[in-house]
Order: sequence, then structure tokens, then C-alpha cells
Amino acid sequence: MELNDKILLETCRIKLGGGSLSDLSNFGERKLFLNTEATKKVIDIATLLGKSTGLACVDCSASSDTVNVLKQVVDLGCCIVLANKKPLTSTIEDFNKLITHPRRIRHESTVGAGLPVIASLTRILSSGDPVHHIIGSLSGTLGYIMSEVEKGKPLSQVVKVAKSLGYTEPDPRDDLSGMDVARKALILARLLGQQINLSDIKVESLFPKEMGPDVMPINDFLDGGVLALDSDIQERVTNASSRGNVLRYACVIESSSSRCEVGLQEFPKDSPLGRLKGSDNVLVVYSRCYNEQPLVIQGAGAGNDTTAAGVLADILDLQDLF
Amino acid sequence: MELNDKILLETCRIKLGGGSLSDLSNFGERKLFLNTEATKKVIDIATLLGKSTGLACVDCSASSDTVNVLKQVVDLGCCIVLANKKPLTSTIEDFNKLITHPRRIRHESTVGAGLPVIASLTRILSSGDPVHHIIGSLSGTLGYIMSEVEKGKPLSQVVKVAKSLGYTEPDPRDDLSGMDVARKALILARLLGQQINLSDIKVESLFPKEMGPDVMPINDFLDGGVLALDSDIQERVTNASSRGNVLRYACVIESSSSRCEVGLQEFPKDSPLGRLKGSDNVLVVYSRCYNEQPLVIQGAGAGNDTTAAGVLADILDLQDLF
Repeated sequence: MELNDKILLETCRIKLGGGSLSDLSNFGERKLFLNTEATKKVIDIATLLGKSTGLACVDCSASSDTVNVLKQVVDLGCCIVLANKKPLTSTIEDFNKLITHPRRIRHESTVGAGLPVIASLTRILSSGDPVHHIIGSLSGTLGYIMSEVEKGKPLSQVVKVAKSLGYTEPDPRDDLSGMDVARKALILARLLGQQINLSDIKVESLFPKEMGPDVMPINDFLDGGVLALDSDIQERVTNASSRGNVLRYACVIESSSSRCEVGLQEFPKDSPLGRLKGSDNVLVVYSRCYNEQPLVIQGAGAGNDTTAAGVLADILDLQDLF
Repeated sequence: MELNDKILLETCRIKLGGGSLSDLSNFGERKLFLNTEATKKVIDIATLLGKSTGLACVDCSASSDTVNVLKQVVDLGCCIVLANKKPLTSTIEDFNKLITHPRRIRHESTVGAGLPVIASLTRILSSGDPVHHIIGSLSGTLGYIMSEVEKGKPLSQVVKVAKSLGYTEPDPRDDLSGMDVARKALILARLLGQQINLSDIKVESLFPKEMGPDVMPINDFLDGGVLALDSDIQERVTNASSRGNVLRYACVIESSSSRCEVGLQEFPKDSPLGRLKGSDNVLVVYSRCYNEQPLVIQGAGAGNDTTAAGVLADILDLQDLF
């Protein structure tokens, strides 16, 4: 299937309008993959061409369902580029399978969008410099929310504004649960060699179980539930402030203790996480070389452009293999 | 010539003692390269093996004399890894020759030691994200000096302490002239496509010409000359402070105007350069993707360990080509 300009333009038009790629079906090309025999032919061709010419499977979905296809891709000796966190945060067996050939998989945009977080960590680790400790603020949404709450605004109000600005997922509890940050932390922890699963991570949710999406409809949460959380968060912000600190939703990964947790933590106002403003992401890495003066990488950690640039840089990076 | 453990240990012993590699000559192996016929044989072997097996020439010297050898290395189709800034800051013709095959040359440790500055910039540029603007503090020595002067200490005293701590070159004027920062700025500007030479960069020296190394002996400078600079610097620091700013020795590179200059500049106290402390380096990159929220990379930008880790990561990165 050739992606000519006409199809690419139509694809952009559909995606910009909030549509799905399945709306492309009237172009005919997508039907190819609904046909078993055609699919087999494509895989046969991939098997022949994959290793020699550099075929890469790029997964920019947010689906858990792609992991089996990706494992097949590994077996075919082809390359993988991911913006999708799910395949790397499934079981540790799946993770280990996907990184069988570590140089054939790139996934910069799974953590901090295009911020050169994974590329930098990989460089440090490959040079034999052991990473002791990582602290990160890896959710632009939670970063924005905590900066606003710090200014004295009630959490409930900040969440509503963030939702109306499109900063949150359609159900803001998908952000407030911390699970998105936990997945990013898991990817980083596994890169450091921790053989852990998502369930091993201590995750602090910003709402109690009884306000969860399975229990409380979204409007009940936004109009009622979240109001009950205001005073507790405000008290914690005030207490932190009285100690010269600020509250941030952070991930902390320690190599020696295999500690990996995400949640609200206090940081000094003039620390890399403490001075974070708005929706910036930041990663702070301590290693043998970056000991007293850690490596700090900061910048826009969300957005279509940045994520796409990260995916494209990954694809281009793979060309060195061929 | 095989580098066995005995030779490597002896090499480390000599270098740790402040000696030169030429002290190794009694091992016999080095003589190989003083013999024209043997040199020719080595080059013939490189020609045969270079492209297929991945031969890399690694230059960790601080010499201008290696550039001709490196240009030969390019012609042989071999790879180059540099910690040495000089080959990339010679003429623009030499630079363009060395980057003939951009993927076969790596030079992370030429700017900010092992900080992933070049790797990150290369990723951004290769993804088609145009870089508009770079601001950096790329001298740990000048960073330390300006932080100390900011605390109210006289420049003359700070320079002497920095020298005694081994933070400066043997003649601190090699740092204070700004030429080391100018070379780093030139490498970054050329990466952005500016076809400029070192002489095109506006460089602010922290001492006047009449105190230069060719005119004034080092002890006269340290015991006399530098004292005359104290009040001027202190006045600039005070003026900046009255505006809520701090003085930093920075490099500024602008793509649109081909501006490339290094010197003392004022920055707001809470900007990435303004809050820099001690000998940390920082690079701030503005591009289409990193527009309002720039990419900031900060950390230890000097030191043997960090520089060596950067060189090693570069070498390992090249393995993808083979």
C-alpha cells in the first residue's frame, strides 16, 4: 500500500477533524488488512525485506492490543518505534521480548513526548555510568494542576478549567489517578533493569476509590466529588509552603532499593521540580558521573508536534542500522 | 598494536601522574607510528577494514594538528569520535569535510562534556524541527567565577581561588578570554547550518588586550592586572542586581540573523541561566516545537569521568552503522 499525497492529506483531514483512521476505509487500501490472505502476503514480504532494508513498525496508538503484533515484528527481525506506552508496560515478559534487540526498538515519545529523555538515559547507561536515582515530573496535566493549586486556587476549579482547555483526558480522573505517570515510571524503571510490573508501583491517586470511574459518573465527580478534595489538597499545599516547599506529582525511582513510586511529594522551591511551572516536564538523573550535579532535562513534555518529532527522530535514528 | 591490560594500566599510571603518552615509548609499541613504512601499513589495513568492520578514530587531544589525519579518516570511510574541539573549529572547509558523512562523526564531549547536548540537538534537527535560538552557559569555570562574584567577592580573589582549586587552565586568562566558549558556540552554530568561522564570533574577553598573555606575564596578571578589573565587574553585577538580574558569561546563537556571540549578559534571576549555580552547564534551545517552553539541558559540564562517558557513548552509538 503506497501512501500517496492524496491519502496522506485525507488522513490529516480526518484526524484534524477528530475522526478515526477507520473512516479511511472508503479509500479501499485499508481493506487489505481485513483480508487474511493479503495480511499473510504483507508479513511474508516483511520477513524477506525486514532485516536487509530496515522495515520499522511504528505504533502511535494508545492501545493494549498491539503488543502481539509487535512481538511478531521482533521475531521477523524488524524494528519498532513506539509512542504508545501500553506495549512496554504490559507484563515483564512482554517487555523483555520487545527489547530482545535493544538497538532495534526506540520509544522516545513514550516518556515526556519528544524530550530527549530516553535517548539520554540510554546513552548514560550504555557508557557504563550506573544510574542511582531518577526523579521526574512527567505529566504536563498534573504539573499544570499543581502549579495552579499552589497559587491558592481550589483543586475542583483548576480541574474544571484544565478540562475546558483540553489539558486533561476527557475524564480527568484518567490523569488524577496517576496511572499515566505510573506507566512512564515503569518504562524508566525497566530501562534501569528493574524486573517489575505496573502492580509493583506504589501509586497515589488524587481521588479515593469511591469516586472512581466505575463507581461515580463523570458529572457527579466534576460537580460534587472533586469539591470534597479541595480542603485536603489545600492543607497539604499550605503545610508544604510553611516548610519552604511546594507539592509536585512526581515519580521517584531508586536503583539500589528497587523503589518505584509516583505521588504527591514536597520539593524545595528552588529545586528542579520545585521551580517547575505550568505544563513543563522535567527529569532529574543521578548517576556516578552526575552525582552532586544531576543531569536535568526540562521542556514541553506534551503536544502533537513534539510527540511526532520524537517519533520521527527515532525512525531516522534507526537508519544507522541499515 | 594490541592494547593489553599491562599497557592500559601503565597508560593510566602515567596519565594519573600528569605525564604524557610519549612516556610510553619505552613500551616499544608507540615506535610503530614513528616509522613511515609501518604507518603506511596501518593505513592500508584501515582502508580495507574501515568501512566493513567499523573502525573509529577517537581524538581526545586538545591539538589543532589532528585535523589532517581526521580528514584522511573521512576519505577512508572510517568513523570519527571527538572530545577535541579544535578540528571542528578550524576553517569552515575543514568542518564541512569532517561532516561529509554526518552519521559517521560523533562529538558529544566537545560541548558540555558528556551532557547530551549534541545528541539532543541532532535529534531535533533531524526530525525537521527548526532551531531558532540557543542560549547557553558552557564554561564551568566562568560559571563558577560569575556565581562567586555575584556573592560580592572580588573577581581577583575568585580567580585566584578557582586557579588553586584546579578549576581554571594553568593560565586563567585561557578561560577569561572567552575563546573556549567561543569554540563551543561555533560548533553549535555550525550544527545549525551557519557557515561561519571563529573570527566571525563576537567574543567578549574579561581582560583588556594590554593584559593578554603575549604582553603581561601570568604572575603580573594575577598579582596586579586582575585587581584593576574588580571594580568594573562589581559595578556591572550591582547594576544587574538592581534590575533583578544576574550576570552570566553566555553564548547566544540566533538562526534567523546568523548572530553568534559570547560574553557577559544579564539574565532574570529565575531564568535557566539566572538560577545556574557553581560549575553547572546549561543549554536552552528554542525551536518550532520548543517555543514558549524551551528545551533545557543542565548538569555537570566538565570532569574526566563525564567527558570519557560521553566519548564512550559516542563510540557505542556508532556500532549501529556496522
